[in-house]
Amino acid sequence: MIIVLKENPDPSQLDGLISWLHEKGLQVHTSTGESHIVLGLVGDTASMDIDLIAALDIVQSVKRVQEPYKKANRKFNPEDTVIQVGNAQNSVQIGGGTLTIMAGPCSVETEEQILTVAKAVKQSGATMLRGGAFKPRTSPYSFQGKGVEGLRLLSLAKKATGLPIVTELMEVQQLEYFEDVDVIQVGARNMQNFNLLKELGRQNKPILLKRGMSATLEELLMSAEYVMSEGNERVILCERGIRTFETATRNTLDLSAVPVLRRLSHLPIIVDPSHATGKAALVPPMAVAAVAAGADGLIIEVHNDPQHALCDGSQSLRPEVFDTLARKLSAIHKTMRDLEKMEKAS
Amino acid sequence: MIIVLKENPDPSQLDGLISWLHEKGLQVHTSTGESHIVLGLVGDTASMDIDLIAALDIVQSVKRVQEPYKKANRKFNPEDTVIQVGNAQNSVQIGGGTLTIMAGPCSVETEEQILTVAKAVKQSGATMLRGGAFKPRTSPYSFQGKGVEGLRLLSLAKKATGLPIVTELMEVQQLEYFEDVDVIQVGARNMQNFNLLKELGRQNKPILLKRGMSATLEELLMSAEYVMSEGNERVILCERGIRTFETATRNTLDLSAVPVLRRLSHLPIIVDPSHATGKAALVPPMAVAAVAAGADGLIIEVHNDPQHALCDGSQSLRPEVFDTLARKLSAIHKTMRDLEKMEKAS
Amino acid sequence: MIIVLKENPDPSQLDGLISWLHEKGLQVHTSTGESHIVLGLVGDTASMDIDLIAALDIVQSVKRVQEPYKKANRKFNPEDTVIQVGNAQNSVQIGGGTLTIMAGPCSVETEEQILTVAKAVKQSGATMLRGGAFKPRTSPYSFQGKGVEGLRLLSLAKKATGLPIVTELMEVQQLEYFEDVDVIQVGARNMQNFNLLKELGRQNKPILLKRGMSATLEELLMSAEYVMSEGNERVILCERGIRTFETATRNTLDLSAVPVLRRLSHLPIIVDPSHATGKAALVPPMAVAAVAAGADGLIIEVHNDPQHALCDGSQSLRPEVFDTLARKLSAIHKTMRDLEKMEKAS
Amino acid sequence: MIIVLKENPDPSQLDGLISWLHEKGLQVHTSTGESHIVLGLVGDTASMDIDLIAALDIVQSVKRVQEPYKKANRKFNPEDTVIQVGNAQNSVQIGGGTLTIMAGPCSVETEEQILTVAKAVKQSGATMLRGGAFKPRTSPYSFQGKGVEGLRLLSLAKKATGLPIVTELMEVQQLEYFEDVDVIQVGARNMQNFNLLKELGRQNKPILLKRGMSATLEELLMSAEYVMSEGNERVILCERGIRTFETATRNTLDLSAVPVLRRLSHLPIIVDPSHATGKAALVPPMAVAAVAAGADGLIIEVHNDPQHALCDGSQSLRPEVFDTLARKLSAIHKTMRDLEKMEKAS
Repeated sequence: MIIVLKENPDPSQLDGLISWLHEKGLQVHTSTGESHIVLGLVGDTASMDIDLIAALDIVQSVKRVQEPYKKANRKFNPEDTVIQVGNAQNSVQIGGGTLTIMAGPCSVETEEQILTVAKAVKQSGATMLRGGAFKPRTSPYSFQGKGVEGLRLLSLAKKATGLPIVTELMEVQQLEYFEDVDVIQVGARNMQNFNLLKELGRQNKPILLKRGMSATLEELLMSAEYVMSEGNERVILCERGIRTFETATRNTLDLSAVPVLRRLSHLPIIVDPSHATGKAALVPPMAVAAVAAGADGLIIEVHNDPQHALCDGSQSLRPEVFDTLARKLSAIHKTMRDLEKMEKAS
Repeated sequence: MIIVLKENPDPSQLDGLISWLHEKGLQVHTSTGESHIVLGLVGDTASMDIDLIAALDIVQSVKRVQEPYKKANRKFNPEDTVIQVGNAQNSVQIGGGTLTIMAGPCSVETEEQILTVAKAVKQSGATMLRGGAFKPRTSPYSFQGKGVEGLRLLSLAKKATGLPIVTELMEVQQLEYFEDVDVIQVGARNMQNFNLLKELGRQNKPILLKRGMSATLEELLMSAEYVMSEGNERVILCERGIRTFETATRNTLDLSAVPVLRRLSHLPIIVDPSHATGKAALVPPMAVAAVAAGADGLIIEVHNDPQHALCDGSQSLRPEVFDTLARKLSAIHKTMRDLEKMEKAS
Repeated sequence: MIIVLKENPDPSQLDGLISWLHEKGLQVHTSTGESHIVLGLVGDTASMDIDLIAALDIVQSVKRVQEPYKKANRKFNPEDTVIQVGNAQNSVQIGGGTLTIMAGPCSVETEEQILTVAKAVKQSGATMLRGGAFKPRTSPYSFQGKGVEGLRLLSLAKKATGLPIVTELMEVQQLEYFEDVDVIQVGARNMQNFNLLKELGRQNKPILLKRGMSATLEELLMSAEYVMSEGNERVILCERGIRTFETATRNTLDLSAVPVLRRLSHLPIIVDPSHATGKAALVPPMAVAAVAAGADGLIIEVHNDPQHALCDGSQSLRPEVFDTLARKLSAIHKTMRDLEKMEKAS
Repeated sequence: MIIVLKENPDPSQLDGLISWLHEKGLQVHTSTGESHIVLGLVGDTASMDIDLIAALDIVQSVKRVQEPYKKANRKFNPEDTVIQVGNAQNSVQIGGGTLTIMAGPCSVETEEQILTVAKAVKQSGATMLRGGAFKPRTSPYSFQGKGVEGLRLLSLAKKATGLPIVTELMEVQQLEYFEDVDVIQVGARNMQNFNLLKELGRQNKPILLKRGMSATLEELLMSAEYVMSEGNERVILCERGIRTFETATRNTLDLSAVPVLRRLSHLPIIVDPSHATGKAALVPPMAVAAVAAGADGLIIEVHNDPQHALCDGSQSLRPEVFDTLARKLSAIHKTMRDLEKMEKAS
């Protein structure tokens, strides 16, 4: 960590700062420039509170040289984390070179709907079932999801297809209903709900953590760190689009997040092209691009019968479109794997 | 609400849509253009789910003509909401032409600290005491606030000065400790924590609702609507800066929010220049500008002894700087009020 | 185009508006809702000035149903535009199913440098040579490019390798030196330099138009329309990243732009992963992802000798890294083409 | 300037870098940390090319301690720049404690229009006349301004009222027509048209430089530096809103720019609330707020007869609204000045 001091700092404040840094177990290297004094800190700065230092009267700015996350940091855990989901009979692996495809409806609605969709996506090659039971909605007057009943229907679909379930939890109190859920999703709006993250850090289930709409990748990793620092190290990172000025898509899918996170962290990375783009026609090209960028998986909305369902999302794919897409994804994933092998061999 | 259909919509789907809209009690006006059919909806469209309609196969886009919020909407409540805070002896009014100044330290630390700051800001003219007990921090390794002990210290300061308290609640479970708190703050990161908002809608205390870092003003009003729709109509809106590409300030203070919200809503509006700018030197000019833009109040960070306190924020004002600022705010507020009276008289 | 009027519009102003619209040759359908009157316009609205209408006192908002661009619009030109670059001996095709790879150094520096790089990238499969002669730099104190001498060196490299040249023009006065340039690049900072665009619309060379750092895709297409409306219809659209709050990459590469532009326009689309990410390590995954998303080509920075060149960009690839990447791009492009053929066949 | 090297840098590259820095006349302080080597540079780093250094293979990141602009920098020119506009009879001062109000129509249309508006705004207290002759428009099909004829009409209005003129120049070739123009405006879209800036740096007229839609304040100052480095030091900075996700206003007016620029630079700062908000009703509160934030002036759109003018902007004020606003601005400016005097006296 490098601390740039303001010009002509108060000497007693400077002494105070240096003593305090020594107390924290850090070595301090002082460089005196033409106009500024610069302090270089050596030691365990990852747990230092950068805001606290930046806030000091005599400090102009602070720059981290090392990342502020540890457990999520690839430097300290060079091997890719591979997460096993589901039980012995129906185990699914996330990360480690496999391609995980989570598919299903935006909201769970009826038994018929969820069973139909679950069977269809399994048939096409999906390895997990997604579906919303508790739905975060901008308006209190919009449909808020089927809740506990939705979870029951997801369980039925899991029993029928063997697909492990991923679904969103909105508050700690709902945990009691999530026993049969395989992966707990934290939505974008809750990415910095720190109390929720800490509680999930004490659970024994993988957490799919969605990037907040205006969260930097470092903040996403810090939220993963919240979960991991409580003991649960099975976190899956999910890029789902960020908020920008562009209105042609609902959000701007930041696919660079995939290689950036890959270098910074050992955690698996999946991409949600449905929420990012908000338009069914854009889902297939962006899903394919995500695999080409190196994502470990995708989470894709698929609805059942567009003729009869009124609220099927414009971002949801029809089962037959998903089927074509799933085959494409598999082909691109295979090409990518072959290229990697060739590269390693040469 | 106006629905623009895609070119050549499926006739049976169009019939289905129109029947469904009729069932919802809406009149539908159909205009057939050269390339597109447009449906104009007449009736109570505020509670319609715009996403649901935009999601239909035959729909190109949907445009609201009326706002999706009701209780927060000035159209339905033309009179400014004035909120009484505190008890009979120490009542403070927010909105309605008065200027509310909430001041205090970022975090409550010690009894001496909070009493010193509380007395100082009261002396300078602050009408409420702010101070963090539960602190949302990006890093799990940063100081998370004094918690329940912090609330106890705030109560002591309230008793000593008579200043009502505003402080942040991070999760529903903390409510039991908030009995002596006068205004409950919802932080920017929790603006769309809908379960929390609903629970606060059932409380009998004013809610200070901070705008999320990437929330539109309509989304802020929808979050206010979540609280109000559960029965608690005492919501104070707070602009605290949005996230943009600019790095000279921590966030970009969006002061246009003040006149925009004033026209859209009857709720009082306060501004937080401390968190928005992140720099003490920028707080006074932006606080004065906020009053000139028509804000009902300010929430400002003031720390006590910069000589001894290590973690006093770079965004916090020293008591003597706050004192000068408070006098300026009062003078500008008076000038603005005089100008308004003259304008009405002429 | 749909015009939503404010509540209770002045009748004489409304009459004036309707007469004026009739004069413009438009039909006007009036729908009267509960609180608002809505006008639906039928006719050639593409050339209507939406700002002018939105600016009227009685107008609340205006919504386009049709896009404001014509010549760049796929609706009016359903077939993909294919652009031929270069002369009879060394013709290169952009668009139409081929993959164009433009590669070369950020700045042209010396004859040895440009010849070395040009030969290397040709060997690896690049089909065009890029290189900056006039360089837009944020600081007046930074290197501004070799200028006319840089163009001369590019010509030498073109002669030596047969690769057509693409390079940036910064102002109309430079046109006289661009005779041997095959494709003229308009930089992101000049995307809305309308006088420049009009002049380029009168040239007989393809234009590579880069998206502005904060330009919407509609604005990019409107800038293409500026060029095309003057007669030059050979425009290549280029996504190069947009400015957001994220700092892990220099810009945020908006790959969704590829399928969005593909649907809206018939013009070829290329992607610049070097400037978008600003980091060499991110260029290969994003280049591969761009091809998977359906881009017609890439423009990639490649430098020569990292041992000796001091200013080789951190976003530039070494020739051997580019060589590996070029083979990957070709493999992915082939897989994509095969999948498309299969899809069409089935 | 501080250079953080990557872990385990190549020793010969490191030596090469240090030698090169010495050649540039800089001292280099090397600090070796636990994982990183940090170089502190002492000397004239303002003219160093930060991108060039950041681009080196062995460099992880570079951090400026000193700003990259010199002539625009308050550190090197502590006194506020005051700019005289107009001739001996009709001199107007910008900066230095006066409040400059530039007002006039969006576009110059007819002699009657510009004379009427010019007389009205002068009567209300405006000190300069604004009006567009060359108009940058997103669409090639929109009205592009009256051009040279518009400049002639502005001259007539100047003769009739004595108000100096400010109007936008879009390309160097138009300079010949700008003889009678007092202040040349560079529009937001041209803020980084570096060739234009350099040419204006050779003119003997003040330049009003508008901030680009996605330009940081440092980039705005670097563009001012382009003009100043060519010899023309009379630059006026103009905040006119930045592009964000918020859609309630056309742009987001970043009023914090005023105190930030005040501290970084000695140049006068004006604010354009008309283009920033895009809505007439928001112009008065934001204009007042700009003065309270410390702006040296405002540039405001005023139209003439809303009954007859079809294209009067929704962001333009009627003369009577402007008249009321001008009196408010004057009152607030006086209050601010009085407060400053009191503060200095105490």
